[in-house]
Amino acid sequence: MTRLKHYRVKPDAPFRLADIDPGETPFLPAEEHHQRESLELLADELDHWQNLLHAEGRRKLLLVLQGTDTSGKDGTIRWVFSRTSPLGVRVAAFKAPTDEERAHDFLWRCHAVVPRAGEIAVWNRSHYEDVLVPWVEGWIGKAELRRRYAQINDFERLLAETGTVLVKCMLHIDKEEQRKRLQARLDDPSKHWKFSMGDLAARQKWDAYQQAYEHAIAATSTAHAPWYIVPANHKNHRNLMIARLLIKVLRDMKISLAPANPAYAGLKVQ
Amino acid sequence: MTRLKHYRVKPDAPFRLADIDPGETPFLPAEEHHQRESLELLADELDHWQNLLHAEGRRKLLLVLQGTDTSGKDGTIRWVFSRTSPLGVRVAAFKAPTDEERAHDFLWRCHAVVPRAGEIAVWNRSHYEDVLVPWVEGWIGKAELRRRYAQINDFERLLAETGTVLVKCMLHIDKEEQRKRLQARLDDPSKHWKFSMGDLAARQKWDAYQQAYEHAIAATSTAHAPWYIVPANHKNHRNLMIARLLIKVLRDMKISLAPANPAYAGLKVQ
Repeated sequence: MTRLKHYRVKPDAPFRLADIDPGETPFLPAEEHHQRESLELLADELDHWQNLLHAEGRRKLLLVLQGTDTSGKDGTIRWVFSRTSPLGVRVAAFKAPTDEERAHDFLWRCHAVVPRAGEIAVWNRSHYEDVLVPWVEGWIGKAELRRRYAQINDFERLLAETGTVLVKCMLHIDKEEQRKRLQARLDDPSKHWKFSMGDLAARQKWDAYQQAYEHAIAATSTAHAPWYIVPANHKNHRNLMIARLLIKVLRDMKISLAPANPAYAGLKVQ
Repeated sequence: MTRLKHYRVKPDAPFRLADIDPGETPFLPAEEHHQRESLELLADELDHWQNLLHAEGRRKLLLVLQGTDTSGKDGTIRWVFSRTSPLGVRVAAFKAPTDEERAHDFLWRCHAVVPRAGEIAVWNRSHYEDVLVPWVEGWIGKAELRRRYAQINDFERLLAETGTVLVKCMLHIDKEEQRKRLQARLDDPSKHWKFSMGDLAARQKWDAYQQAYEHAIAATSTAHAPWYIVPANHKNHRNLMIARLLIKVLRDMKISLAPANPAYAGLKVQ
């Protein structure tokens, strides 16, 4: 479990994304049937913790998933939460902003879907899109970028101070892995619905996006909202690592249920 | 499978809630280990259908769950969707309306959380609270009640005509079963968080609520948004019947995936 720490980006320390190999699999059992079993056990355990969080009804958990196209955000949600009741988990997917969203500040649509008491929210992409895309596309300059980092840190501090535990994961794959996954989507007609030509355009800017991620993560990995770099070339590894991470975070929350209500003692229902 | 029809409330036919025994278990295998296996198989199958619905990305499914306190709305969601990814299932729980909600028409908060294309939405209570509670409490008269039924039918027709398949289930338990369940919550301090004194107040009006349900269901079970009465004294039966019902509905939708995109043929990712 201590190894998770290695993948947490330390605030105020130099950080290079390239130092972490996307092909690493430190949380993966060697045998494939063990991988499946482990994931099922962890998914069940996660459901247990989510129940407790829901019963406590006080604090919240926010999991932010970021990563390039095909890095496995959907797959992570599918597998890590395969046994968790949708009662207590709410997924929000952030696409290119609508006109209505664009007419507000960039945190407006995010604030609207933060988890409520007792809930886990999972964000498939997030407010980080608004520092990655505009920077790479050249729509904003350095001063605005820094201002947004500070706004993000303030926003996340508000959430943390009001009972939300934040976990931010970057699903880290390499360029060759993305090529394979995009090609697989093209080669299988039943997967065409997952593909868009925009994916290829973004791929042209791979290096710029990697740099933007590195820069944004370094600026926003804080004690109250840390970033984790998840080696994600191997899908089972990605799922197992994130499941472990969430369970560790939930354990550390030391969730305690409300005490018995003395007013109910001895009450008989007629 | 044909037996499901028996529990569907026919439009324009006399309907008496008392004709259906809450203790019936027509969808329950005799042996308990078979019950568990069946439910797991059905939950897995439901996940399969939900994936297809998501991939189709066109139509929507709305499951409305209504029933008295302790009738098992939460439990249904927990078990029926135990294997379904939260990616494609969104749960909305309707409580007593807030001031903001009260400042709008009663369908406003519901319309805001209808399922989007490819999604299953599950409503834990619903717009039906606004014909049940105000009627039983005497806040509205007959004319307003009828107006609301018509507004509900219009709203549901809009949803149906714009690609939403609606399934409405009343979880049908009897008064003695409710007594046991409330008592169990009182007797187990770890369940006190689920209990409120308001539950006892509502129980005092059991008969009035049963009549209000019967009346509302008769007035709003339509071809495009049918009500099903689910015998729910037995929890496994309730879960199995609803899982079967949803699978049948999804099968009948004849979901077909988007055809391959010819523009993608032979494309190579660089």
